[in-house]
Amino acid sequence: MPYVTERNITDIVLDRWRAVPDPRLRQIMQSLITHLHAFIRDIEPTEQEWITAIEWLTRTGKLSTDKRQEFILASDVVGVSMLVDCINHRLSGGATPTTVTGPFHVHDSPDLADGADIAKGAPGELCYIVGSVRSLGGQPIAGATLDIWQADGEGLYDAQRGGDEPWMRGIFKSGDDGAFVVQTVLPVPYSIPMDGSVGDLMTQTEISPMRPSHIHFLIDAPGHHQIITHLFKKSCPYIETDVVYGVKAPLIAEFRLLPAGSATPPGEISNQSFWLLQYDFVLQPTAEATLAVSSTESAAARRECNQA
Amino acid sequence: MPYVTERNITDIVLDRWRAVPDPRLRQIMQSLITHLHAFIRDIEPTEQEWITAIEWLTRTGKLSTDKRQEFILASDVVGVSMLVDCINHRLSGGATPTTVTGPFHVHDSPDLADGADIAKGAPGELCYIVGSVRSLGGQPIAGATLDIWQADGEGLYDAQRGGDEPWMRGIFKSGDDGAFVVQTVLPVPYSIPMDGSVGDLMTQTEISPMRPSHIHFLIDAPGHHQIITHLFKKSCPYIETDVVYGVKAPLIAEFRLLPAGSATPPGEISNQSFWLLQYDFVLQPTAEATLAVSSTESAAARRECNQA
Repeated sequence: MPYVTERNITDIVLDRWRAVPDPRLRQIMQSLITHLHAFIRDIEPTEQEWITAIEWLTRTGKLSTDKRQEFILASDVVGVSMLVDCINHRLSGGATPTTVTGPFHVHDSPDLADGADIAKGAPGELCYIVGSVRSLGGQPIAGATLDIWQADGEGLYDAQRGGDEPWMRGIFKSGDDGAFVVQTVLPVPYSIPMDGSVGDLMTQTEISPMRPSHIHFLIDAPGHHQIITHLFKKSCPYIETDVVYGVKAPLIAEFRLLPAGSATPPGEISNQSFWLLQYDFVLQPTAEATLAVSSTESAAARRECNQA
Repeated sequence: MPYVTERNITDIVLDRWRAVPDPRLRQIMQSLITHLHAFIRDIEPTEQEWITAIEWLTRTGKLSTDKRQEFILASDVVGVSMLVDCINHRLSGGATPTTVTGPFHVHDSPDLADGADIAKGAPGELCYIVGSVRSLGGQPIAGATLDIWQADGEGLYDAQRGGDEPWMRGIFKSGDDGAFVVQTVLPVPYSIPMDGSVGDLMTQTEISPMRPSHIHFLIDAPGHHQIITHLFKKSCPYIETDVVYGVKAPLIAEFRLLPAGSATPPGEISNQSFWLLQYDFVLQPTAEATLAVSSTESAAARRECNQA
């Protein structure tokens, strides 16, 4: 073996790490070592800087709990979560694009009837979401599952309020015409948690820690590519600077404010003003989704797919 | 702002992270984002693979304590600790090269007299270390500090035995002729800790987790570049596959076995066989060390410095 020098060490390490039986793990470790060494050679850290990095990583791990994942937050603010999302959901231009899942999705939201209120007295301004789920060709999709969750009108998710019951979330089904109606409150912008290691890093920047107003959707229908996405409130002041880079042009939607006396989507006359968000989700049939992801010949073309 | 696509996201993130007032942190974050995104684009992780990586990082943070730093171990086994060491200690070819500090150095080792025994009844075969500390030009350095530590003859450091007293370590001073004598036991090869997240990764490889037999030295003398290094036992079966890549050719030293009846370095006739390690450390004067590190014109030349 050649003994270690600054010049040959990367090759020596890469050579050693070829001894990984699983080809995928071997590929990941070869790439990780290559890029990590390139990073180190690029910045030439002092020993104290490297220790600072080690301590930051350690603190990030210790902060993470069932309800808070600080490493995911770290991955979010450097755009890696969104890049992973883009890579895993290369959809046709006409399909509703995906965006980051975020930390607040749960797997046991309550099943609710069409038109039900997910806010149940939560603070915030009355808001209705109406729309439909359609296939790429425009056909309505009946019985699609819409798993919806959001922060309340004070910018807090149920997990952040400490309650035991699910709140500001629910699972709806589209009707025979693909349509759905949800009652909720208007989402507001909020800051990512700034009391941890990611917050410590962000306060050393002049980057806004705000997420623009949004509502989360997980939409699933047989034969179609499942999507996890947000709808963002058009003209929210933070929409151009989303701290997790989740905004894609087709996901920006208009929330219209209607005056008291207007008819609500369920058909009653409202005695208060309310917001109305109208949006049609378009799902890509699975065969086409699979085709788009599996084709190796059109990688460049696929990267264009999700463009605004 | 252009909205996010798979193609433009790296540029959008880099642009956002220019808003870092401190130029060094800005440089580090620009480089980190560039290399991290290149890694992700290279391996195209599935969402499950990315979650697996997040969980591995989290577990690594939670495992770390005052006595165990699992992230340093992770940095060790992918050669990053050693690369950082190389970058920070670009010494002239004639100087004794540095190697990784490892996790077992402490700052309050006992001061011991020349010839003292650091093993104090520890398991292992009797061993003497004799040598001198010299400057690059060959002049002996009197009063150099030699902070020495090692595992005992069963491959354990004091921290791993759980005792409260420092053991298998001590601080010596070189004499007027630069010479020193230390009594100890022969170091043996040992495995890195394999019961954590790094061990879980290593068991998925066919890479040896062993470190070759070695003794640690931190050597400090006024006017000279401080070095932290090891001496490795020549012909140790793991010397070509050190799991942390710490072996440099000039650090491989011969441990000779002398028969009972031989004179020990302190001058007594030994009634048992013993090992003898003879080594002269060469320190680089600080001015030269500073020059070597600060010159930006000879980066390539400097990278050759530490070559075997």
